[in-house]
Amino acid sequence: MVAGLQGYRGNTLELLKKSGVSIGDLVEVKTTRMTVQGSLMPRYEHADEQHIVLKLKNGYNIGLQVNDILEIRWIAKSTSPAFKSPEAPKLDPQLPKVAILGTGGTIASRVDYRTGGVHPQFSAEELYLVVPEIAKYAQIHTELLFNVYSEHINADHWEKIAEKTAEMIRDSYDGIVIAHGTDTMGYSAAALSFALADTPIPIVLVGSQRSTDRPSSDAALNLIGAVTTAAKAPFSGVYVSMHHTIDDEAVALHIGARIRKNHTSRRDAFESIDTSPAAYVRNGELEVIHKDLPTKDKPQQSFKARYRFEKKVALVKFYPSFDPKIIDYLVDSGYRGIILEGTGLGHVSEQCYDSIAWATERGILVGMTSQCIWGRVRLTVYDTGRDLLRRGVIPLDDMFPETALVKMMWALGNTKTAEEAKTLMLQNIAGEFIARSPIERRPRD
Amino acid sequence: MVAGLQGYRGNTLELLKKSGVSIGDLVEVKTTRMTVQGSLMPRYEHADEQHIVLKLKNGYNIGLQVNDILEIRWIAKSTSPAFKSPEAPKLDPQLPKVAILGTGGTIASRVDYRTGGVHPQFSAEELYLVVPEIAKYAQIHTELLFNVYSEHINADHWEKIAEKTAEMIRDSYDGIVIAHGTDTMGYSAAALSFALADTPIPIVLVGSQRSTDRPSSDAALNLIGAVTTAAKAPFSGVYVSMHHTIDDEAVALHIGARIRKNHTSRRDAFESIDTSPAAYVRNGELEVIHKDLPTKDKPQQSFKARYRFEKKVALVKFYPSFDPKIIDYLVDSGYRGIILEGTGLGHVSEQCYDSIAWATERGILVGMTSQCIWGRVRLTVYDTGRDLLRRGVIPLDDMFPETALVKMMWALGNTKTAEEAKTLMLQNIAGEFIARSPIERRPRD
Repeated sequence: MVAGLQGYRGNTLELLKKSGVSIGDLVEVKTTRMTVQGSLMPRYEHADEQHIVLKLKNGYNIGLQVNDILEIRWIAKSTSPAFKSPEAPKLDPQLPKVAILGTGGTIASRVDYRTGGVHPQFSAEELYLVVPEIAKYAQIHTELLFNVYSEHINADHWEKIAEKTAEMIRDSYDGIVIAHGTDTMGYSAAALSFALADTPIPIVLVGSQRSTDRPSSDAALNLIGAVTTAAKAPFSGVYVSMHHTIDDEAVALHIGARIRKNHTSRRDAFESIDTSPAAYVRNGELEVIHKDLPTKDKPQQSFKARYRFEKKVALVKFYPSFDPKIIDYLVDSGYRGIILEGTGLGHVSEQCYDSIAWATERGILVGMTSQCIWGRVRLTVYDTGRDLLRRGVIPLDDMFPETALVKMMWALGNTKTAEEAKTLMLQNIAGEFIARSPIERRPRD
Repeated sequence: MVAGLQGYRGNTLELLKKSGVSIGDLVEVKTTRMTVQGSLMPRYEHADEQHIVLKLKNGYNIGLQVNDILEIRWIAKSTSPAFKSPEAPKLDPQLPKVAILGTGGTIASRVDYRTGGVHPQFSAEELYLVVPEIAKYAQIHTELLFNVYSEHINADHWEKIAEKTAEMIRDSYDGIVIAHGTDTMGYSAAALSFALADTPIPIVLVGSQRSTDRPSSDAALNLIGAVTTAAKAPFSGVYVSMHHTIDDEAVALHIGARIRKNHTSRRDAFESIDTSPAAYVRNGELEVIHKDLPTKDKPQQSFKARYRFEKKVALVKFYPSFDPKIIDYLVDSGYRGIILEGTGLGHVSEQCYDSIAWATERGILVGMTSQCIWGRVRLTVYDTGRDLLRRGVIPLDDMFPETALVKMMWALGNTKTAEEAKTLMLQNIAGEFIARSPIERRPRD
């Protein structure tokens, strides 16, 4: 028994021992309901004792109740070898130089079938093995900055990514890809959009909704879209590369400050808000949609990032019976900025007015966005909007809440006074404001 | 000067006086840029001194800078008479009995062109005048419960609406329409879905994104859809009646616990989340889409609402660098429930774990939803989800954050213990959980 029976306990462990099988082995399990074949998976530390887990041929895991099991039959030793780095392919020195930075998340990992462990795929050679197409478009350099689930990524991580990316821009890379977990990729894309505003090259965040061990994985196509864009886009700026639809038909390149994860699990979960994607990649070809994207003619060697983020900024969602004492608490706790996620055109109940005035009088920036997500805040339509304007609330037009939060953290982090930060909040730094048009259209119409 | 020059001040007031015009008069104004005709509108109390406002023939208001004005010419006295209640149409006593309850918002008001004031349209006669079609479908009884902007509506209002509606259910109405401002109509629809669960008749909330003085108003069509449904739907339950698309083609009847306002201003701003509308109304005809809607065969006289709402429940949206002390603050402030709006499948950073455990150990209900809005929370996919489960977090599946908040307020308000409330949270009370299907579909696909 090389791999042992990691994670199994109690009578389940006893049963497996008795059957003479090890983790990674191909086994057949007969239960009161069915007979299935699959590889025996290890168990997580906190999993219950009453199930064994098989990985089926189709890539899905199945848990089998130990009391239902009639028989476990060993069929074969694990056939998948431990993951080994292959040889690097021969590279064309004429190809653009692209860096892929790893931060964690599904796209940067591969489930090792033999151990069930997650293996970060982060030498260039390993990426070439899994997605060989990328070698056609670029000479890849890879670097793992950290490897965390994206729900744990915070402003400190943004600062590190921005600093490293700026260094690579000065180091003459043609484009940079940042692999990122999808949970907070929208926030990180906004953060880099501001921190790396005026980047002379394309920076592309990329993630995956399904891990590479699943037959429906979107990892390869999204990565190809990202590398293609980094290598040969005629524009600069910060983008997110994700599936355009649930099919493998195209990858959408979304503007970093206009992107939101709008579904928990679908491959096309990411949507550009109130605009279309900037471009698509189909069969390795880039189709540019937006006509006004930033150009690539700026000098790289002198590029400087503005990558500080103020952490004392809160995003507060309003709802009926919301207690304004929550705002008072933030004021008392030394917050420097608050983004309100109001209703409709940007409203909160009149019970909140005093607390808001108290905050702005103390120099705290209070910005208004809408929980509708689509559309724009307008505080001049109704009395209640004007009531908020007179109390110093900053209407943030069509910037949606998540981007507004990140921008306020950035604006306060890179200025000396609240007044300067407020001025930045109202400037269009990275396409976060969509130009007004007489008819508002959502991309899904 | 009957109506005077209400709201005008300073040199603007002087100019108007000098020109001999009054509010409501048809005037022609010549500026350095153009010449326009329109009715002189009154000014809001806090409006600036430097503009006069005309209502143009097309219904839109225009503000004219006083310094640009070359001449103001009086053309005619106001022609629109003060709003008078017309005669009630003859009613067919065979028609269903429908009550329309007013709570405020755009649909229940009409701008009086003569004074510019907002006139609540709330006798049945006045509604018949503006939307004569409704008299074909029902005998209408109207009642104005209150008249507030919906951003001010809170759980106390929900209790009043629910109590009154329950009374009318017992009073043998065939259906009840509730006119409501759109800002928080989704929250109120969820509140009534739970408070009036098992209603034997249809209850329909209706709003309008554009007021009735605008040529593009959606008020009439939405109201016709609501009254049609209240009068002749073969199903019971709580619904929201709003435009299905931006055209006047159909009204969608959304399930009250699955509806969200997803645009600040569009007429089709309301969308059913992760499901289709329950029904449509086209040309006065009801087309039922959902097959499993509740029936109408329950007795009305014995109907009882469960209409208490606990106000000490907070909706907390997670974001990168979120400070868990905000959770500690809620615990210390006596909150009984917290709905977290996590990322992706329902995650928050590990920095929050201790505060969450501290909350649940003290008997506070902590429910997890996703800020993705679409899709479902699943805490068994990743380690970080299981970390939350072990700390007592309740995964709320595909209930989206706003409905989850309202349901927790209701569950805690109508039970004696947190344990009972938790049980209610996981039961499907009003269609708030969508049945699982192998392929998740959004209505916009």
